Amino acid sequence: MSTLPLLSRRGLSGMMLAALSARATAAQAGDDPLPSWRDGERKRAILDFLAATTTEGDAGFVPPGDRLAVFDNDGTLWVEQPMYTQLAFALDRVHALAPQHPEWQTQEPFRSVLAHDREGLSRAGTRGLVEIVKATHAGMSPDEFHVIVEDWLRQARHPRFGRPYTELIYQPMLEVLALFRARGFRTCICSGGTAEFMRPWTERVYGIPPGNVVGTTFQMSFENGRLLRLPEMDLINDGPGKPVGMSRFLGGLPQAAFGNSDGDYEMLQVVTAGPGRRLGMIVHHDDALREYAYDRQSHFGRLDRALNDAARRGWHLISMADDWSNVFPA
Amino acid sequence: MSTLPLLSRRGLSGMMLAALSARATAAQAGDDPLPSWRDGERKRAILDFLAATTTEGDAGFVPPGDRLAVFDNDGTLWVEQPMYTQLAFALDRVHALAPQHPEWQTQEPFRSVLAHDREGLSRAGTRGLVEIVKATHAGMSPDEFHVIVEDWLRQARHPRFGRPYTELIYQPMLEVLALFRARGFRTCICSGGTAEFMRPWTERVYGIPPGNVVGTTFQMSFENGRLLRLPEMDLINDGPGKPVGMSRFLGGLPQAAFGNSDGDYEMLQVVTAGPGRRLGMIVHHDDALREYAYDRQSHFGRLDRALNDAARRGWHLISMADDWSNVFPA
Repeated sequence: MSTLPLLSRRGLSGMMLAALSARATAAQAGDDPLPSWRDGERKRAILDFLAATTTEGDAGFVPPGDRLAVFDNDGTLWVEQPMYTQLAFALDRVHALAPQHPEWQTQEPFRSVLAHDREGLSRAGTRGLVEIVKATHAGMSPDEFHVIVEDWLRQARHPRFGRPYTELIYQPMLEVLALFRARGFRTCICSGGTAEFMRPWTERVYGIPPGNVVGTTFQMSFENGRLLRLPEMDLINDGPGKPVGMSRFLGGLPQAAFGNSDGDYEMLQVVTAGPGRRLGMIVHHDDALREYAYDRQSHFGRLDRALNDAARRGWHLISMADDWSNVFPA
Repeated sequence: MSTLPLLSRRGLSGMMLAALSARATAAQAGDDPLPSWRDGERKRAILDFLAATTTEGDAGFVPPGDRLAVFDNDGTLWVEQPMYTQLAFALDRVHALAPQHPEWQTQEPFRSVLAHDREGLSRAGTRGLVEIVKATHAGMSPDEFHVIVEDWLRQARHPRFGRPYTELIYQPMLEVLALFRARGFRTCICSGGTAEFMRPWTERVYGIPPGNVVGTTFQMSFENGRLLRLPEMDLINDGPGKPVGMSRFLGGLPQAAFGNSDGDYEMLQVVTAGPGRRLGMIVHHDDALREYAYDRQSHFGRLDRALNDAARRGWHLISMADDWSNVFPA
C-alpha cells in the first residue's frame, strides 16, 4: 500500500512544491553551459562570441555549415608538462625498441635516452628529438601505429598526477568544446603533435572525430597493398605551419582559435585577422598548485611573443588560476 | 463559384480515387532512392551493401560514426572528356595570364597552349602539364585562387554539351551520394585533381563540404600574415597516392569506394581489402551517345589494369549505357 493516501492534501502539495523548487535550482545550475568557468571577462567573451555568431541578423552571424573552431592540443586541451606527452611516448618507445637496436647503446641521442641522461638529451637538441620521433613513429602501417599508441596510453601514467594522460584534460575546455558543438560549430584540433598520435583517442576523450584532427604528418608509401609510415615528416604543423595545415586539411578558416603558446601565434593571427566576428584565446598556465605555472622560460609550450602581443591583437588571456574553478575532470 | 458542386457524388469520388491512385504511383516512384539506376546487379549491390552496413546485428554492420564512403571526381562524379576540366581551366589561365608573361610566346609548353598547338602540347607530356599547372595554380592566396576558380566556372562551357562544367555531373551518382548520406555515411571525394580546385563548389554541387575533399595539394607558405600557394606539389593524390591521401586526410579507411580509372586502382584495392563488408565500384564509360565511350586507350581516365582485375577483386563494373536511365540532371 502506498504511503501517499496517508499524506494530507496540504502535505502532498508542500512536498511537490519543494520537489519542483529543487528541480528549478538544478535546472538553473544546468543552464550554465560553462560551469567550470568563473564569471568574468573570459567566460563572457566566449558566450558573447557564440551569441553573435549564431544569432541570425547579427553582424557576426555565421551560417551553421561554416562554423568552425580550432583548438591546439598540448597545453590547451591537455597537460604538456613536465614534457609533451608525445615525447614521453617516444622515449618509452626507445626503451621498448632497444633490444632490436643494439647500436642505440652507443649512438646519440638514443644512448642518452636509454641511460636516462637528461643532460645528454638536452645537448642533442631539436635535431635529436626529431631523430627519436622518426625512429619511434615510422616503419609500420597507420593501423599498427594506432594499436601502439592505444596500448601505451592504457599503461602510461603522468609522473606527477599518477593518472592516465587522457584523464589530464582540462574540464573547462571540455565544456567549451561541447558548447561550441551544441551551437553548430565543427570543433577541430590543430596541433604541433602528429595527427596519428591523437586520432586514436580524440573522439573518445574530446568528442572530436579523427577526420577533424590536424597535426604534423609523416610521409607514407603504399606498396604491395600496404600503407607504410616513412621516417620523414611531411607538414610540421606548428607556428607558421598551422595556417598551412588548417587551409590544407579543413578547407576553410575557423572563426575561433584556442591556443596556449608561441606555436599557436600564427594560428591565432590568421583566425582573428579574418572578416566578421572572431575569437582568439590563450590558456595562460599560472596555476602551479593545481597544474603548472610557466610561460616565457619554458622548454615546452613557451609563451613569450604571443604574451607580448595578446592585448594588441585582441587575444584573451585565460588565467587558469582565476578563470577556472576546476582544472581536471573529477 | 467552384465547379465541385456540379459533380455527382460518384464523379467526385471517382476523381478522388484517381488522384489518390496517381499519388500512390508517385509515392512508389519516390520510394526508389536510386530512380536513375535501372534494376540489376549494380543497383542491387549498392542497396545490399547499405542494408548490411546499416542493419544492427548484421555481420557487416558499421557504427554510424565510422561510416565513410569515397568518390573519385573526374569521370566518377563529373565528365572528364575531352580533357580533365582542371586542365581546361589551366589552359584558359595560360591565355589569361599571357600578357604578364611575354616569355611564354616562345617558351614551351606555354607557346603550344597559346598557339592552340595540340601536337606541341602532346610532345611536352606530363612534365609539360605539371609546368602548366604550377604556373597557373600558384603565386596567390587560397582565397584568391578560390575566386579565380569560381569566376572561371561561371563562364566556362563544355565544348560538346555547351553547359557549365558543374552541370555535367552524373545524376545517378548524385542519388548515390544522397542515399549514402541518408544512411549515415560521411561522403568524401578522393581525387587526383587538386583539392583547392574542387573545394569552392563541391558543397553546392554534390553536398560535400570542403573539409571532406581530399585531392592533390600544393606546398604553401605563411609569411607576413598571409598564406601563399607555392609552385610545388605536396601530395599527388592519384594511384598509390590515394591510400596515403585517405589515411592522412580522413583519419580512417572508408567501407565503400567509387572510381572509374586506373588512378583509382589502389584506392579500390585498400578499401575493398579491409575487414567486414566492403563495396568497390567502377563507372565504365561505354555510352558514346549520351556521354563518352573510352577505357584502355584513353589519354584521360584510362581504365585498363582495373578493368582486367575488376572481376577477380570483386569490383562492380557500372555500365553507363545499361545501368543508368539518366546521365545528367535535367
